[in-house]
Formats: sequence, C-alpha cells, structure tokens
Amino acid sequence: MRIDLNSDLGEGYGPWPMGNDAEMLSIVTSANIACGGHASDPETMFRTLTLAAQNGVSVGAHPGYNDREGFGRRVIPMSPAEVGRVCAAQIGALMGMAAQVGARVSYVKPHGALANLAARDRDVADAIVEAVQRIDPTLAMLAISGTQGEQAARAANAPVFSEIFADRGYLSSGQLVPRDQDGAMIHDPSEATERLIAFLETGLMPVIDGDPIKLNAHSICVHGDSGGAVDMAREIRQRLTAQGVEIRAFSSV
Amino acid sequence: MRIDLNSDLGEGYGPWPMGNDAEMLSIVTSANIACGGHASDPETMFRTLTLAAQNGVSVGAHPGYNDREGFGRRVIPMSPAEVGRVCAAQIGALMGMAAQVGARVSYVKPHGALANLAARDRDVADAIVEAVQRIDPTLAMLAISGTQGEQAARAANAPVFSEIFADRGYLSSGQLVPRDQDGAMIHDPSEATERLIAFLETGLMPVIDGDPIKLNAHSICVHGDSGGAVDMAREIRQRLTAQGVEIRAFSSV
Amino acid sequence: MRIDLNSDLGEGYGPWPMGNDAEMLSIVTSANIACGGHASDPETMFRTLTLAAQNGVSVGAHPGYNDREGFGRRVIPMSPAEVGRVCAAQIGALMGMAAQVGARVSYVKPHGALANLAARDRDVADAIVEAVQRIDPTLAMLAISGTQGEQAARAANAPVFSEIFADRGYLSSGQLVPRDQDGAMIHDPSEATERLIAFLETGLMPVIDGDPIKLNAHSICVHGDSGGAVDMAREIRQRLTAQGVEIRAFSSV
Amino acid sequence: MRIDLNSDLGEGYGPWPMGNDAEMLSIVTSANIACGGHASDPETMFRTLTLAAQNGVSVGAHPGYNDREGFGRRVIPMSPAEVGRVCAAQIGALMGMAAQVGARVSYVKPHGALANLAARDRDVADAIVEAVQRIDPTLAMLAISGTQGEQAARAANAPVFSEIFADRGYLSSGQLVPRDQDGAMIHDPSEATERLIAFLETGLMPVIDGDPIKLNAHSICVHGDSGGAVDMAREIRQRLTAQGVEIRAFSSV
Repeated sequence: MRIDLNSDLGEGYGPWPMGNDAEMLSIVTSANIACGGHASDPETMFRTLTLAAQNGVSVGAHPGYNDREGFGRRVIPMSPAEVGRVCAAQIGALMGMAAQVGARVSYVKPHGALANLAARDRDVADAIVEAVQRIDPTLAMLAISGTQGEQAARAANAPVFSEIFADRGYLSSGQLVPRDQDGAMIHDPSEATERLIAFLETGLMPVIDGDPIKLNAHSICVHGDSGGAVDMAREIRQRLTAQGVEIRAFSSV
Repeated sequence: MRIDLNSDLGEGYGPWPMGNDAEMLSIVTSANIACGGHASDPETMFRTLTLAAQNGVSVGAHPGYNDREGFGRRVIPMSPAEVGRVCAAQIGALMGMAAQVGARVSYVKPHGALANLAARDRDVADAIVEAVQRIDPTLAMLAISGTQGEQAARAANAPVFSEIFADRGYLSSGQLVPRDQDGAMIHDPSEATERLIAFLETGLMPVIDGDPIKLNAHSICVHGDSGGAVDMAREIRQRLTAQGVEIRAFSSV
Repeated sequence: MRIDLNSDLGEGYGPWPMGNDAEMLSIVTSANIACGGHASDPETMFRTLTLAAQNGVSVGAHPGYNDREGFGRRVIPMSPAEVGRVCAAQIGALMGMAAQVGARVSYVKPHGALANLAARDRDVADAIVEAVQRIDPTLAMLAISGTQGEQAARAANAPVFSEIFADRGYLSSGQLVPRDQDGAMIHDPSEATERLIAFLETGLMPVIDGDPIKLNAHSICVHGDSGGAVDMAREIRQRLTAQGVEIRAFSSV
Repeated sequence: MRIDLNSDLGEGYGPWPMGNDAEMLSIVTSANIACGGHASDPETMFRTLTLAAQNGVSVGAHPGYNDREGFGRRVIPMSPAEVGRVCAAQIGALMGMAAQVGARVSYVKPHGALANLAARDRDVADAIVEAVQRIDPTLAMLAISGTQGEQAARAANAPVFSEIFADRGYLSSGQLVPRDQDGAMIHDPSEATERLIAFLETGLMPVIDGDPIKLNAHSICVHGDSGGAVDMAREIRQRLTAQGVEIRAFSSV
C-alpha cells in the first residue's frame, strides 16, 4: 500500500502569509503551489518552491481565478477557453519560477471555485486539460476522484491521478457533503485517520447516506491553513506510516 | 545587409487596447510581447501571440515592473534578485500562453524603467540574464546596444542581440538623448529612415554632440503605440527593403 | 421640455484611455465618472473631474465591480450587503477626489453588470440605495427607467432620476432588447434623434414587439467610448436643442 | 497627564488577516485604518470600522502607496501632487465606508514609505496636508513628532497632533534609530513603559547618543501586528493608567 499526501501551499500574498508552509512541507509529498492568481506573487512562489525543493516534495501548479480578494472562491464568469488560458498563464509563471530553484512542475490541480467547476462541468474540465497538455503532455492532472476533471483527463489520454479528502464527508453519489450540512467536515484527526486506513485497505469510502462506495485514490488532500491542520496532517502521516502505508509522491511513480 | 525590426506589442489590458498591434505585426519581424506585469492579461497575451503566429513574427517576452498604473515606467524599489524573479514569472506566463498557439518565446527584452535600469546597473542586468538562462539557456536577450545589459549577457555566454532606436537621437557616449532635450526624438519618417540606411552601410551612428559613433545592431526598435508610429514603421520597412536590406528576425539566424 | 444628457466617462486606467472624455464633456450635462472599481485610478479620476468642472458638467459616481480585467461586465458573486460596500468605498473615493477640484458628487449610477443586476434584483438595488443614503441622503440615484433600482430608491424616499438610452431598442416589457437580437442597437444618429424627439413630445417609446410604451425620463444616456459615439451625442444635443428642448443636468433642478 | 494610544489596524486583505485587530481595538484609543492602498478592501475596512465603533475607538485614515505586494514600504516614484491624490482617494474610500457604520474619520496618518517620505520631504508633506484640508478642514493630521509632516500641518493652520513610538529608540536629532542599528527597537514591555512614563513626566525622551531631548506628543504609537505587540500595548496601557495617566483619544479633545 502506498499513497501520496497533497496540500495547497504558497497561498500567501505580499506581506500576508497563509498557514504554515514550512511545517506542511515537512509532512506532505506533493505541494499544490499557488501561481499568482487567487494568491501568491513572485517572492511567495520563490520561497515556497525553495522550501519544497529542500524537503524533496513534488511540485504541482495550483491555478485559480485571478481574484485575490475572493481567494479564488467565487466563480468569475468566463468561457471554458478563457479558463484554460487563465490556467496556462499561471502554470507558466510557476514553471518559470520553478526553474529558478531547479525544481520541476509535475502536475496541475485547480483551486477553489475553479476546481469545483471543473469537477462538474466537462467543457471547463476539457479546456483545462487541453491547456495543460499544450504546455507539456507529461504534465499530470490531480483531480478529485470520480469527477468530470478526472474523466476529461482520461478522455484526452493525459496523465491523471485522483485524490480523496482526509477531512470531508462523502455522499453515496461520490460527491462531498456540502459544507453547510452535518457530516461535511471531520474535525477529529483520529477519526479521519481511521477512515483513511479503512479506505486504503478496502477501497471503500464510508458515506453519510448509505453503503460505502468504491473510490479511486492516488493521493489524500490534507488542508494546510491552520494550526489544527498541521496536527491533522502529521497524525495522518504518522499513523499511515505505522500501518505500513508508504507515503510517496504519485508523480514519482 | 540584413536587420530585424522589433516593437513592443500586446501592451493593452482588459478592455483597453494600446496601439495598433494588428498593423504593427504586419510590419515587424520580432514582437516584444507584454506578459502581465506592466500591461496585458491572459486574453491580451493570447490575442497578441495568435496574431504574431499568423504573421510569422518572432516572439520575445517583454517583462516589466508589476505596475500597471505606472505602465512599468517607474522604478519599484527591489533587489536585483527580486527583479530576476519578477522577470521569471512573467516570461513563464508568456511561455505558457505561447504553447496555446503553438508559438515559441525565443528572446527576452525588458520594458521601460526595468530596461533603463538594466542598461546601466550591472547587478540588475546580471540578475535578469541569470533568471532567463535558468529558464532556458537558448533564450536570447535583446539588449540596447552598448549597455550593461548587453555586457551581462556576453559575460554569461548567453545569446544576445543588440538594438538601436529608429526614432531617438544619440549622444557621443552611446546613450540616448534624454527625452527632455532637443534632438531626443526624430519625428520625420524620412529622416529616421535616411539615418538608418546610412548606419547600416557604415556602422556609424550620427550623434548630436560630436562625430558619429560605432554601434552594433541586429535589430531596430520601432514604436507601436500611435498611428504615426505605424506610418514610420511602414516607411522604414519599405525603404530599407528598397535599399536591398533584408528584414528578418534576428532569432531566426 | 427639458432633459439631461449623461455619459459614462473617466473609464480609462493608468496609461490606457477610453473614449474621448474631453469631447464628451463638451456635450453632456451629467458625467458618470468611474471610481477605481471597473476602471480608473486617482490620476484618471482627477483629470476627469477637472474636465467636468471646467465644462460645468454635473458629476455622478459610477461604481462597478472591482474587476478591471472584465471592465465590470461580469457578475462577481457577492451578497447584496457586499455590493453596497463595494459602492460605498468607490463613491467615497470619488468624493475625496472631487474635493480636490472643488467639485461635488451629486448622484450615483451603477456600472455594467452591477447596473444590470440592480435593475432586476431588488435586494441588490436596496443595498446600493441604502449604502448611498448612509453617505449622504441628498445623493441622488440615476436609475434605468422602470427598473428595480428606480423602485428601490422611491421606496427609500431617496432622490431618484430616470434614464432612457439613446441608442438601444426597447421591448414592450420596458426592458432593453438584448444585444444579440435584431433591433438591439440604433446605429444611425438621425434615427436615434427622431426617436428621442418623438418620445419627449409624447412620453411614449417605440418598441420592437408592440405598441409604444410609457416611460419616465429625466436623462438620456449617450455612449462615449468611440468616435461614432461622439458624433451621435453631438447630433442628439444639436437637434434636441433645435427642437427647443433645454439640455440641462437633472441634478441642477 | 493624558495621552492617546494609536495603532495601525485593518491591514489585512481579502482572505489574509494581519495582526489581532480585535484585541488591539480593546486597548488603543485611536485606530489608523488602512484604506485599500497598501492593504485592505471594502470588507476589511467595514469589519475594522465596525470593531472600532463597537470599542469607541477614534478612527483615522491610514493611506499608503497603492502597492499591496510591497505593503506600502517601497517608495513608488510620483510627484507630490500625485501623492496628495493617492491619499485623497483612499481617505474618501474610508469615509464612504465609515458612513456605513455611523463612524467618522477624524484624522489622517500616512503609512510606511509614504509616512517616512512625508516626515522628511516638505513638498510631499505639504501636498498631503493640502489634499486632506480640501476634503475637510477639520480633519487632523497625526504626524511623527518633530518632522516635516508636523510642520507642514502647522504652516497650513491644519489641526495636527504628534506621536512618539513606544518601541523605538531615538537619536539626539529627534529621528528614530534606523532599524539596522543597535538600539533601534525596544523589545521589553517594561523598559518601553518605564521610558514612556518618564517621558510623560518630564517631556524628555532618552536618546542613544547624548542627553535626552524635548519632544512633543499627543499620542503613543503601538504596533499591532504580532502577539507580542498586543502584550506590549496592553502592558503600556495598564501601567500608564496605574500611574494616573488618562488614556484618551486626542481627537476627542
């Protein structure tokens, strides 16, 4: 058994940090690094990439809507093709910066409202995959398991890896429990970890409205933007390791 | 005799165009394309790159300070290393977008206050060259003839090409006549063209304060941000061609 | 008979102008001036306010979504209260700048996607009116005739004036013909002017799908963002004046 | 004896907080609130103004260069008149937002590089004072004691109050010890408080290079951007109060 741990990082901006990137980069194996769209700027990208390289963490681009005030959590109306180009510019920016630290961007994972849209809107998912493939056909997609994003990448014969969430409840449809409903969030690190271990052993994910469902996962997404998140990420890593699960970047396969 | 014609293009932003890119791209052989720093955004980059590709024009990145309000004409205080990283992110962004139209970024020419600083400050010039080389050692620099930028590239064994200005007067020091002095600007297309032809034949550039000086030039910079500029660019191209000068991108050498 | 002519002005940004503000300010009687949201910056506001003052033109604030790249033409998801606060900050900014030229902001007209939303969504219209009234209860709203924006201002006992469009076709519902349908735009200055004169004489507006409808109007909106627009505005002003219609700012009533 | 405590607050942006505004607003009597230039946005202004109003804290505008990436700590080259207009737009924005919570902006204190420039450059100081006076002649300036900013306000007969720093060392010239020299910062809350008490009793400020100097002070600036800063602010308030010093906003005089 092996799995990757990924987290959204480098999401500060100018004088404002977000979360504890240094701690998280000592825990995760893949870093989804903001590229100047919903967050970040050249210096923040550089610092985050430097830390990722020092920790041997695999680097992914984490593009989002160009909307820092809304942190990429609002859908900015645009065509699928425009979405693809927003991503292309941001991924390129991170690649230009990665070259400064001798790192390589090996995958792409959309952020926030863009990720949610790409998960359910095939045209948007297709446009993102196409934009990424044009940059480099070996660039992988990291998609939410069971979504349009995953299918779009498969259909394009693009490399794709799937993620599940450590701290989110699932519905029998395979979708996440909406944040405003009971069971949406799992706050207890032990409970989250037990669930992940059971999933890794069986391939079945518990849901709040029926029998466990089958999900595909190469990576577990852990959140990085609070002190509690660092603790949860550390506990998940330690207990998975103790169970004999190898924690390794999917992009090093 | 052969020479390149370059112009700063794609310097609109959102709903605001600047100059007549379509006309200029039918005249020049190299396009210095803004990358989202002092101007541009994903859609503007995409449109400009598409037009450049359709016209067979060579593409360069035109990074500037992240200062749209000042159009990159103000020095934003930062260290040379920070300047290098500002350039790296912007060059990367343009490369990501160039991939969307099947184009290739083949050189870099800094913009405005950044270009002026790189022309006189060797540390800044070195930092830019270093950042560019890390991205791709085949990426050329397009530098103002006789400046620190040119020397920094030579010292780093980076590919470098030199430009002169079609519509600017020179001092015997090799520097441009400051814009607030008599002789700074050459407004008459015929005069500008005569001067260029004489220069191409002799390698000597007239100056306002002494004997003509020897300058090195692979490219002539023509401005693109007004109707008059289009006329001057067109006249220069026509008359140089009529004189038997081949107009060809330096980066296609 | 009297009427006001209003136009959206000061919609440049940094080095990028939009339209011909100087010409338009010699024609219109009310200037809807962008406030740094969808367009403008301190220098652009200052220049536009200076020109408006020199021409004796009444000044209104023209707030829009903080989205320069989309020019305020995209709905940025936010609550009605947030919309009100976006407007409050922008109106205040323009008032601070108006004080620099001894001018006074006398009304507010939302821009683009914000205006369209306020025209149909009463909660948004209420939030904007409330935000404006808190700043100064004598600040008037300039609303599209027959919309939620007009009704929201009336319900709040706020001063409100209504506008019709010089160059847009109407539906019998009182709404504008959508831009992608035949009859949406009136391009011929003579036709536009005839229609306005007939309307001013009868209070009835022709529609493309039935009998003319009754509309209320204190102001005619003329567009200012192209050369043709200046010509249309000038012709409208001249011919209305020739018909004995007095062209005067509504806010000077 | 009475004195005001002021702090720079509301300096977050979008999803990124800075410091602990809620705690600081329970300690200080005057809040210098960022206005969307070096930091802040409509929602951040609104939240900060709401908290200030709830705590009965006097509100000042804290304008800075429009440079969020540099947090207003870099001098952006512009003319004194342009500086005045940058301030005018920001002060206006905060006033528009203050009206939303029923608060009043009663003074202005420039931020960061703008404050440092206004302290030493009389033309810049004059331009700021002039811009502020045009908005409202009762708006006070909060200036660093002994600087050009203080003198500019006096010369313009504008209301002006002077501040000293709780945690900074002074030179016999009256200037602050530069941050890169020994004695620049006072990190120990007790030491800072002793020094302030002695100053309030004698009007004399200790310096690192000679005899104590006479300074004028209506307010003590305490920093708000770290946990330690909250502790220092609280200790200063408690011990000054224990010494019988009344802590009250200068603008309520």
